[in-house]
Amino acid sequence: MGQQMVIILKQGAENQKVQNLISYFKEKGLNINYSEGAHTTIIGVVGDTSKLDIEAISAIDIVGSVKRVSEPYKIANRKFHQDDTLVEVNDLKIGAGHFGIIAGPCSVESYEQIVGVAKRVQKAGAKFLRGGAFKPRSSPYAFRGLKAEGIELLLAAKKETGMPIVSELTSLSFIDLFSEVDVIQVGARNMQNFDMLTELGRCDKPILLKRGLSSTIEELLMSAEYILSGGNKNVILCERGIRTFETATRNTLDISAIPVLKQFTHLPVIVDPSHASGISSLVSPLAKTAVVAGADGLIIEVHPNPEKALCDGAQSITPDQFDKVMDDIKALCEFENKKI
Amino acid sequence: MGQQMVIILKQGAENQKVQNLISYFKEKGLNINYSEGAHTTIIGVVGDTSKLDIEAISAIDIVGSVKRVSEPYKIANRKFHQDDTLVEVNDLKIGAGHFGIIAGPCSVESYEQIVGVAKRVQKAGAKFLRGGAFKPRSSPYAFRGLKAEGIELLLAAKKETGMPIVSELTSLSFIDLFSEVDVIQVGARNMQNFDMLTELGRCDKPILLKRGLSSTIEELLMSAEYILSGGNKNVILCERGIRTFETATRNTLDISAIPVLKQFTHLPVIVDPSHASGISSLVSPLAKTAVVAGADGLIIEVHPNPEKALCDGAQSITPDQFDKVMDDIKALCEFENKKI
Amino acid sequence: MGQQMVIILKQGAENQKVQNLISYFKEKGLNINYSEGAHTTIIGVVGDTSKLDIEAISAIDIVGSVKRVSEPYKIANRKFHQDDTLVEVNDLKIGAGHFGIIAGPCSVESYEQIVGVAKRVQKAGAKFLRGGAFKPRSSPYAFRGLKAEGIELLLAAKKETGMPIVSELTSLSFIDLFSEVDVIQVGARNMQNFDMLTELGRCDKPILLKRGLSSTIEELLMSAEYILSGGNKNVILCERGIRTFETATRNTLDISAIPVLKQFTHLPVIVDPSHASGISSLVSPLAKTAVVAGADGLIIEVHPNPEKALCDGAQSITPDQFDKVMDDIKALCEFENKKI
Amino acid sequence: MGQQMVIILKQGAENQKVQNLISYFKEKGLNINYSEGAHTTIIGVVGDTSKLDIEAISAIDIVGSVKRVSEPYKIANRKFHQDDTLVEVNDLKIGAGHFGIIAGPCSVESYEQIVGVAKRVQKAGAKFLRGGAFKPRSSPYAFRGLKAEGIELLLAAKKETGMPIVSELTSLSFIDLFSEVDVIQVGARNMQNFDMLTELGRCDKPILLKRGLSSTIEELLMSAEYILSGGNKNVILCERGIRTFETATRNTLDISAIPVLKQFTHLPVIVDPSHASGISSLVSPLAKTAVVAGADGLIIEVHPNPEKALCDGAQSITPDQFDKVMDDIKALCEFENKKI
Repeated sequence: MGQQMVIILKQGAENQKVQNLISYFKEKGLNINYSEGAHTTIIGVVGDTSKLDIEAISAIDIVGSVKRVSEPYKIANRKFHQDDTLVEVNDLKIGAGHFGIIAGPCSVESYEQIVGVAKRVQKAGAKFLRGGAFKPRSSPYAFRGLKAEGIELLLAAKKETGMPIVSELTSLSFIDLFSEVDVIQVGARNMQNFDMLTELGRCDKPILLKRGLSSTIEELLMSAEYILSGGNKNVILCERGIRTFETATRNTLDISAIPVLKQFTHLPVIVDPSHASGISSLVSPLAKTAVVAGADGLIIEVHPNPEKALCDGAQSITPDQFDKVMDDIKALCEFENKKI
Repeated sequence: MGQQMVIILKQGAENQKVQNLISYFKEKGLNINYSEGAHTTIIGVVGDTSKLDIEAISAIDIVGSVKRVSEPYKIANRKFHQDDTLVEVNDLKIGAGHFGIIAGPCSVESYEQIVGVAKRVQKAGAKFLRGGAFKPRSSPYAFRGLKAEGIELLLAAKKETGMPIVSELTSLSFIDLFSEVDVIQVGARNMQNFDMLTELGRCDKPILLKRGLSSTIEELLMSAEYILSGGNKNVILCERGIRTFETATRNTLDISAIPVLKQFTHLPVIVDPSHASGISSLVSPLAKTAVVAGADGLIIEVHPNPEKALCDGAQSITPDQFDKVMDDIKALCEFENKKI
Repeated sequence: MGQQMVIILKQGAENQKVQNLISYFKEKGLNINYSEGAHTTIIGVVGDTSKLDIEAISAIDIVGSVKRVSEPYKIANRKFHQDDTLVEVNDLKIGAGHFGIIAGPCSVESYEQIVGVAKRVQKAGAKFLRGGAFKPRSSPYAFRGLKAEGIELLLAAKKETGMPIVSELTSLSFIDLFSEVDVIQVGARNMQNFDMLTELGRCDKPILLKRGLSSTIEELLMSAEYILSGGNKNVILCERGIRTFETATRNTLDISAIPVLKQFTHLPVIVDPSHASGISSLVSPLAKTAVVAGADGLIIEVHPNPEKALCDGAQSITPDQFDKVMDDIKALCEFENKKI
Repeated sequence: MGQQMVIILKQGAENQKVQNLISYFKEKGLNINYSEGAHTTIIGVVGDTSKLDIEAISAIDIVGSVKRVSEPYKIANRKFHQDDTLVEVNDLKIGAGHFGIIAGPCSVESYEQIVGVAKRVQKAGAKFLRGGAFKPRSSPYAFRGLKAEGIELLLAAKKETGMPIVSELTSLSFIDLFSEVDVIQVGARNMQNFDMLTELGRCDKPILLKRGLSSTIEELLMSAEYILSGGNKNVILCERGIRTFETATRNTLDISAIPVLKQFTHLPVIVDPSHASGISSLVSPLAKTAVVAGADGLIIEVHPNPEKALCDGAQSITPDQFDKVMDDIKALCEFENKKI
């Protein structure tokens, strides 16, 4: 699994400096292919280059440019793991041809609310119940979730319906409360909270890893690699919109990321049309694009009374609207030969 | 069709300046709603506010913020024109339930190439033939198209196959060469070439208006408004990817723009999956997302031998690959009840 | 300190729904200014609107648009705290006319390295020593810092030179190790780690809060508000470049953010020219722009041997280069009447 | 002046396809360095590679990645033209140590306005008078300038004051009206209007080329190359803010672009703080950052009565404010040893 790096030197690089650079790589146990042309001198570095910092090397004065030939992620890489990863909770499946839907309110508010929504979305065909107990909010004055009580309400809804639950962990300090949560969500703001990722790599629960607002696809895969390299192979990736200049939607759903991710990795990939757009009327069309783009599932916000939702109301749909979305999605999944 | 603007004044705005501002609006024939609360003073401006410059007003020292209540585009606005616009060339249709596909090479290269591709894409189900005779290239040293000869080759292909042709106009100085071109394309770089838009508003050909690389949805609609307000009602909008920080794809296809545009305007909207991604393996999945997102058509690059395409080769698919894409698209359009 | 929100209703909003909305606000103890014009109905909401979710309200079907008239941050707001905040460590000052420079290597590597750099930057005029003991790295395979040992080496350098130290906290679980660290840095990736911000609000150390890669100026101020509202008034803001489409520099330094922040807040604002550009030759010119834009200080990476820096080497300058930068900065600060 | 390209092949590339690719380059008169390592095969292409399309080559199935070793611009490249270019109009200079200031209103409105402003800005130290006669406006209903009459008013102001005039050409069809205009401005929206650039390459007037809203630094240099390669060596580049996610300022001034451009090219580079920020109170601090970042000049909007400016008022400063800005700029230029 040797990785390679190609370094193109600047014209007129001093020989002594070139030798220093080559020695530096050799000291690290890497092999060198040296190719000096009339105009271009290229150093190929072969071996485990994943520990090298491409930006640090780019900064060396004799270096013109550096390129990694192979991807910096290994365990997440489809090249080394051709078969789709299947994530299972009880007998519910996401990935490898199975299309899984996660639905529920942004925030857990009360027993009636969460159990009511759970029954409705389960009846409509959702496999997993989502609900936020810990809410990351940009304002310190905003409602930040019911916390421990919210988790208890989710567990009550799980008991009542049998649905596995998905909830966001905002800080490692709350992890003990998540022992009965089935799938732990890492939110967009924590995608590069590397200490959290490292810790989650040590548990055996499926992790739903959301793409950061301005994270590249490669950065998302590197964050997945953190979890995978710790030993936890159950990672579900989630595209939820990126930050761009366009303001007609809250974020810009990067739908191309779905086929790109499916080429690069074997991990299941789902789409969050609610957060991606921030507009409830866009949930249905965007959910459909996810199906045909090759996604393995969806995470959709559903709230019994969107006008009073304590947060993120604009993007929630009602249970009645969710019924219609599910009708569309089921028909489209059947058309696309996805098991739902 | 009165438009309204709401101006929120800063706290403690000097009365004399407030009166000056109100006089300024009255001189322009606008009506004023003045509402002074304990904490907030609001001026509502009613009438044709489209000539007011929202940024200039924002800049006045007593103004806190300004908001247009109604959209700045009128003729393009679905509010004032509920029915979908149907664009027709001969008996070929795009919009109002008709899904139209435009296909062909990035650049016209030779008689054999263009006629060969035309026959293949026509057989596969494309309605319109595209081909670039004038190519906008970021380098002055790059191939810029066969120009007049390219147009002649397109017309030969039209004669041979009966397919209407679509080609990009890069400068008004070439417009006379486009007299027999059926649909004139305005490229992303010319989306805000207002003199070109004004001139095209005076002709009666359908205009394919591509979204600029960093243009908002509202700016795209304002550019359409230029053409429409000149009297030409045949405008087709095209989403072709926007510029973001992500580098895995050449641009980021803003798929949400499709349902958003369909809500805001009655004009047909098509998608260009080739330029949006710059990667031929993404053409098929992205084309499918366009169908389910509610688009009225596609524009796809097809080249007989992508390895030798003189420009944009990376994103072109071969005629054989196009056959497969069309199979998928036709089935999906049937599923979605779109006429293709 | 009443905050206000202006809600512009859609035309033809059902009266019952309007009444429901007004009741909703009244239940929350807010006052209402209702202004119904011929064309536009506006609801002004007065009181502490900071708990309202602007996006949830935007989502209500009768609501056209919502605008907060006042900023959502209070304690950070210059309107309510005209005088510049001065952050002091021992007798070293940043803010309120005092220009403070923090310098040191990206990562602490050894006693010789950190003490060597400390002595050099102190001699050149830096007030604070920076050094990373915990390094956030996008790859799980990359060097992540010497951790506890790194902190100890920093403390040794502090003992040797008397310089206060600045180091990044990547996870709350390490906070006990920071008891003798003088200034705790919150990195760009943790700018919205709200649990960390809340905790840091309870300590009395100065916090250096770096702007997130794709965070708006308002979001940065809201994150500062988290710390301030917990009781810790010693917050230093840091502009370190945002993510854009431009690739010539690693990030795009948003120099306009400096005068904008200085208008909006009383907190000191510093600039990180090293991370903003990722290019050592840009450190000097960008540092100078920070001075004239009104910044209160700089944080600059200095490494004795940039070619061997274990991370971020491309952006580090040598102690010799730092001497020259300091000469320029000192002269410019004198010209601008800043105390350095 | 041979340019080079390095192509890294995918592992396991079929030999026949590799040979085809090599033949393709040889047919184009290029030389090949072929280096086959155990893991990596690299093709170096030497000669005038500027006609090759890097994206088309990237798209070939055996190609892993492609990198141009040298920049695609030649005449604009400082490597081949070490000395700074000096642009002169009459005896007024921009570049090569001379700091030149262009000032005036966004739009020419009347004789009194333009002559009044001209006298004020000249007295304050501006060398050139700017004024828009043709205004690119995103709305077809907005004021688009006085056109021919505007040019005449500018010429009248030139006659009255002796100041050379700078005005924007929005379409080649108006070029005859610009025969007595001293510097032709190409606006951000026309930065990639290649037909206009080609035509301007044939004239001998200085061209002020503004960076497009979402154009990279390399694209700006390639647009300059269009003009230079036509024979016109008098090109002034202008950074005027790029489009990002931040909304506190209209655009984001990319101040790093100044030292980057000064490294890459010998052409003079100026900054437009008015359009970059859209906020008049930011004009002064941003103008100062331009001086210390190494810019060769400024273009500043000045309007006698900003509250009534017909366009872009928010960013204009008054003649009195301009006097103060000039005092600051002159002192700072003196400090920086720039001739003003």
